[in-house]
Amino acid sequence: MKLNNRGLLIVISGPSGVGKGTVRKALFEKTDHNLTYSVSMTTRKIRPGEVDGKDYYFVSKDEFEQKIKDGKLLEHAEFVGNYYGTPLDKVNEQLEQGKEVVLEIEVEGASQVKAKMPDCVMIFIAPPSKEELYNRLKARGTESEDVIQARIAKANREFKKACLYDYIVVNDEVSNAADRIMAIIRAEHARTTRILDNYLKLIED
Amino acid sequence: MKLNNRGLLIVISGPSGVGKGTVRKALFEKTDHNLTYSVSMTTRKIRPGEVDGKDYYFVSKDEFEQKIKDGKLLEHAEFVGNYYGTPLDKVNEQLEQGKEVVLEIEVEGASQVKAKMPDCVMIFIAPPSKEELYNRLKARGTESEDVIQARIAKANREFKKACLYDYIVVNDEVSNAADRIMAIIRAEHARTTRILDNYLKLIED
Repeated sequence: MKLNNRGLLIVISGPSGVGKGTVRKALFEKTDHNLTYSVSMTTRKIRPGEVDGKDYYFVSKDEFEQKIKDGKLLEHAEFVGNYYGTPLDKVNEQLEQGKEVVLEIEVEGASQVKAKMPDCVMIFIAPPSKEELYNRLKARGTESEDVIQARIAKANREFKKACLYDYIVVNDEVSNAADRIMAIIRAEHARTTRILDNYLKLIED
Repeated sequence: MKLNNRGLLIVISGPSGVGKGTVRKALFEKTDHNLTYSVSMTTRKIRPGEVDGKDYYFVSKDEFEQKIKDGKLLEHAEFVGNYYGTPLDKVNEQLEQGKEVVLEIEVEGASQVKAKMPDCVMIFIAPPSKEELYNRLKARGTESEDVIQARIAKANREFKKACLYDYIVVNDEVSNAADRIMAIIRAEHARTTRILDNYLKLIED
């Protein structure tokens, strides 16, 4: 029996190269969960094969900027001239239905989410060591030394933001990291600060 | 990879009749854990078949009172003229060895533990409903109505202390409750407040 029927907003973040996407995928492959994605909103053009409302919500730049003004995005960022963001109303709808909504986002976006939804569960994915992350960043492509150094500098800034998160999960083995996140979700549903109201109703005279 | 090598002190408590002992037993029957008991200290006489240091640490009343004075007990209580308590040094030893030490104790003792070891994990076991607990308290023996009413009054006071705990786990099904506690232990090892120092060492230059 759960004292909390509302779903949890799970924010999975961490420096780029740490394997957030792989961990998130492994998490969704686990059975016995009630996890769901949040479909992002974007101003970039729809591509052949993409479905509006499934891959993204495709909107105009004006619409997007209006959403920002109205506070209707949980977080947003600009990337190569296009906006990307998470619509707040859709997330709330899914949480009300008791689904755990997983956001896999950049460190910058994660702070925005925490500010707007303080009861979210913030999980920072960390590499087993700095060196391992550096190696992954170097191995990614054929970029110049400058680009690689810029990425490492960014990762070093992002590392220091782990203290803003509720949990730090080391991605030493993907399956381990996913198991730990499942345990965190389970535990958070029993957190007193989250369920005290419902508990008090349960034992009311 | 765990960033926390020290074990956790897990306090399992709740009103009498809620099934703390059954949940604790189910927890220890799970595989894949590193849980251990804490052997209590008592001033009551050793009984045939009991082993000093295994069933209890048997000490004199003077010794016990000296331990209280020296602050060497995590918690203690008097019961039918005898003292019972948890020796602090033994618990610390086991935690240092990386073992999760489980204390299954009364609500009164739990507050003492929190005061002495603020980094413990406090878990309150709650019944699925008040009525169910009342029924269990009534069904226990052949006591008079007075004794039963006194127990119910005590349970009602204890119910209200759930807010002092980190987690509230409803004992609707023993195996479920034990699973949730395992998840809590796993999650707590990833808590930022607990592992930030070790994480900062990991990413140190």
